[in-house]
Amino acid sequence: MSKKVLIIGSGPAGYPAALRLAALGAQVIVAEKNKAGGVCLNCGCIPSKSLLDAAHKFNIVKELKHLSIEPEKADSFFNSMDFTKIQARRQAAVDKLQRGVLTLFKAAKVNYIEGEAAFTSPNSAKINGQEINFDAAIIACGTKAFYPPPFDKYKEHLYDNSNIFSITSLPKRAAIIGGGVIGCEFACIFNALGVDTTIIELAPSILPMEDENIVRVLKNSFEKRGIKIITSAAAQDMKTENGVKTILLNNGQSVEADLVLAAIGRTPDLQSLNLEAAGIEYSRKGIKVNPKTMKVKDNIYAAGDVNWLCQLAHAATAQGQAAADDIMGLGGNYNNDLVPKAVYTWPEIASVGLTLKQALEKGYEAKAKKSFMLANGRAITQDETEGFVQIVQDTKTGLILGAQIAGACASEMIHIPLMAMTSGIKAKDAGMQIFAHPTLSEAVKEALLK
Amino acid sequence: MSKKVLIIGSGPAGYPAALRLAALGAQVIVAEKNKAGGVCLNCGCIPSKSLLDAAHKFNIVKELKHLSIEPEKADSFFNSMDFTKIQARRQAAVDKLQRGVLTLFKAAKVNYIEGEAAFTSPNSAKINGQEINFDAAIIACGTKAFYPPPFDKYKEHLYDNSNIFSITSLPKRAAIIGGGVIGCEFACIFNALGVDTTIIELAPSILPMEDENIVRVLKNSFEKRGIKIITSAAAQDMKTENGVKTILLNNGQSVEADLVLAAIGRTPDLQSLNLEAAGIEYSRKGIKVNPKTMKVKDNIYAAGDVNWLCQLAHAATAQGQAAADDIMGLGGNYNNDLVPKAVYTWPEIASVGLTLKQALEKGYEAKAKKSFMLANGRAITQDETEGFVQIVQDTKTGLILGAQIAGACASEMIHIPLMAMTSGIKAKDAGMQIFAHPTLSEAVKEALLK
Repeated sequence: MSKKVLIIGSGPAGYPAALRLAALGAQVIVAEKNKAGGVCLNCGCIPSKSLLDAAHKFNIVKELKHLSIEPEKADSFFNSMDFTKIQARRQAAVDKLQRGVLTLFKAAKVNYIEGEAAFTSPNSAKINGQEINFDAAIIACGTKAFYPPPFDKYKEHLYDNSNIFSITSLPKRAAIIGGGVIGCEFACIFNALGVDTTIIELAPSILPMEDENIVRVLKNSFEKRGIKIITSAAAQDMKTENGVKTILLNNGQSVEADLVLAAIGRTPDLQSLNLEAAGIEYSRKGIKVNPKTMKVKDNIYAAGDVNWLCQLAHAATAQGQAAADDIMGLGGNYNNDLVPKAVYTWPEIASVGLTLKQALEKGYEAKAKKSFMLANGRAITQDETEGFVQIVQDTKTGLILGAQIAGACASEMIHIPLMAMTSGIKAKDAGMQIFAHPTLSEAVKEALLK
Repeated sequence: MSKKVLIIGSGPAGYPAALRLAALGAQVIVAEKNKAGGVCLNCGCIPSKSLLDAAHKFNIVKELKHLSIEPEKADSFFNSMDFTKIQARRQAAVDKLQRGVLTLFKAAKVNYIEGEAAFTSPNSAKINGQEINFDAAIIACGTKAFYPPPFDKYKEHLYDNSNIFSITSLPKRAAIIGGGVIGCEFACIFNALGVDTTIIELAPSILPMEDENIVRVLKNSFEKRGIKIITSAAAQDMKTENGVKTILLNNGQSVEADLVLAAIGRTPDLQSLNLEAAGIEYSRKGIKVNPKTMKVKDNIYAAGDVNWLCQLAHAATAQGQAAADDIMGLGGNYNNDLVPKAVYTWPEIASVGLTLKQALEKGYEAKAKKSFMLANGRAITQDETEGFVQIVQDTKTGLILGAQIAGACASEMIHIPLMAMTSGIKAKDAGMQIFAHPTLSEAVKEALLK
C-alpha cells in the first residue's frame, strides 16, 4: 500500500511537495481553500512581476524621450496607458501558470480538492465536510498580511497583497506602509505608472534586512524618481474623509493618500486548521520545525512561510521537497544558508549568503570588495549604471561568504556567486574564469578578483 | 632594470596585457594605429550593444501598443525616433569607455603612443619614425573585415564594421552578407528600427557554428519580425545603379538594398607590421602561437584575434593576460575550452563548452536536456517566452559538458553553468541548489536536474 499524504495548501511549498511525493509513489491529496498556486502565484511573486514589467516598460518610454525628435510624443503615448489592459495581462500570466499547476497535478494523479482542511486527529482531517485519513501531512498554508495597531481598526480602508492586485484604476496618491520587499516593489510600480508615492518605514532604512550600501543604491534611485521615503516613523492613527486617507505619524508628520497599501508584515494563516486536534503547537511565528526535514512531530510536517524559517517562495519549494523526501524515507536535507533573495525593483537588489556585517559578527576575518556598474561596458551602453556587485570573502581561506548585487539583472546574476559558493571554489579561482564581454556579469568577475 | 615590453594594439588583448605587465613591474609601450580600445570598443562589441539597446527599447514601444488605449500613439512616438541622437548616445558610450582605458594607462604609467608600429628586428620596432628597443613584444593588432570575391571589387559600395557605425541615417532596405554574430546583431538592429532587412548566408543556417536547435529559436523570431533570411546562397555579383545595390545570388535570386553590410569574415590586420624583420611567419589565419602562453617564438607573443584561437573580445583579454604573465616569468595559462560565447540579439543566444553533437563526436556518452522559457514564470510575466536552456551532460560522470541558452538574459545566465563547470560539480548537484523565484535562471536549474 502506498503512503497517503495530505498537503494543506497548493502554494510554492505545497505543490512541489505534492509532485515530488507523487513521483516517489505516494497517494497525494492537496487541499486548497483559496486558489491553486497560493499567495506566490495569485497575489505575490508572479502578479507583482507582471506589473513591475509593465511599469518598467512604460518607464523605458520616458527614458527614450531623449532619443526622439518630438519628446512630447513619449508623454502622449505614456498617457495613453490602459491600466485595465495591464491588469488583464497580469491575470493572463497568473491564469497560464495556474493551469500549469493543475495540469501537473492531473498528470501526476494528485487529488486536488478546493476546500478548507481542519485536523480532526493527528491522522485525519475534514475537508468540505468529508473525513480523510492520512499517513502523513504537510501543512503548507502560508501566511497572510499582518495588521498591527492602529491598522487593525482600519482594515476595510486598506489594501494588502490579497486585494491590491484587483484594483481597476490607479490612485492619484499612494501611501505604502512598510518598506520591505512588497512595499518597495509596489512603490516602484506605482511611481513608474504616474502615482504620487510615499513609503513609510518604521526602521531607519527601507529593506532593513539587506546590506546598507546596497540599499542606498535603491533609496537614491527611488528618490531621484520622486518616490518619497519616510523612515524611522510609525503610523499612530489614520483618518478617512471623502475617500482621502490621512496617516498620522509619531514624528508629527502626516501623509495623505487615496490608496493605502499595508505591507507591514505577515502572519501564519492557521486559524481554520484546528491544529489542537493534531496536537500541534504554534505561535505568531507559525509552527516550529526541524530545519532540515520540516518535521513538526511524528507524521506531521510544515513547509513554507508557515514555519517562519525563510519567507521566500523558492525556500518554500525546497522545504516542501525536503518534507516530501523525509516522508518517503529519503531524508530531508534543506539548507537555509544558501537561499538567494531578490527584490525586483529597478535597480534590482539580490543577495546570497552573508553580508560583511554578518560575517564579522560570526567571527570571520572577512572583507567586502565592490565592482561598480558605472565602469561596466554593458551597463554604460544600456544607461543602467546604477549599482554594484559586492563579494564578501573569507580572507583566511579565500572562500566566498556572501554576495550582494544592486543593478539591472541582479536577480539572475546572483546565481553566479551562488554556484561558486555551492562548489566551494575560492573567489579568486571563480574570478579567473573567462566571462563574456560585454556583460553585466563581468562586474561579478571583477569583484571576485578584488 | 625592469623589462621593456612593446604591445602593438590597444584592443581587448593589448590593453589588459599592458595593465597586467605594468602591475607586474614592466615598462610598457603600447602602439595603436587606430583608436584606443581597438575594434571591440570602437567598432565592435560596445557600439553594437548601444545600438541593440536603443533598438530593443524602441521595439518595446511597439510591444506596449496592446497596453494602450490609443495604440496609434505608439507608432507616432516610434516614428519620432531620432537616429542622430541614437548615434550620439552610442558615441558617448564609446568615448566614456575610451577615456577609461586612457586613464588606466596613465595611472599605470603605460606609455601610449598613437602610431603604426613596424618591426625592424626581433628586438626593435619603428613607431612614427622612432626606433624603439624592447625585451619582449605582444602583437595584438586584431583583425579587419574580410572581403572575398566578388566583394573585393565593390568595397567602396559596401559597409563593414569599420564604417557601419558612422552612418548618419537609416537606409530603407539593408542587405547583410553573412549571418554570423555581426550579421545577426545588425539584422536585429536594422529590423527593429524599421529597416527592411535581408540576411544572406552561405551556410545552410545563420550562426552555423552554434547548436542548431538554439539557432532555430533566433531564426523563427527573426522571421516573425520580418527579417528575411536567405541561406545556402552565395553572392555572385553586385550591381550599383542610382545608389541601389542589387546582389545576384548563385540560386538565381537577387536582393535589392540601399545599404549592404559585409559581415563575411575577418582577416588579420598584419600588413604594416613588417613581421619578416622579426622572423615571424603568418598566414591568412594569422600568427600561430602556443595555446597556453601565446608565445610565437623567443620574446614575441601574439594575443587576441590575430592568433586565430578564438575570435572573441573576452578570450583576447585572457590571452593578453596570459602573455603578460608568461613574459614576467609567471607562466601563461590560457584555456580555450571554457570560453562563453554570446550573441546579443533578442532573444539572446549564449553558449559555453560542448554542444551535444560535439560531445558525441569527442566520444562522450552524452545527453542534452532542455527546459523551455514557455514554462518559466518570469518569462511569462515579461512576455519573453522564446527560447530554452539546454544542458549537455556526460551520462557516465554526471558532469556538465556544455550549455546553450536562447532567451532573454542568456548572455548573463550562461555564467551560471560556466561556474558549475569550472568547479567540476555534477549537473544534479548544481541543479539541487535553491534558485530565486521567479527568475529566468530557474530554467537553468530545471535543465540541470533533467
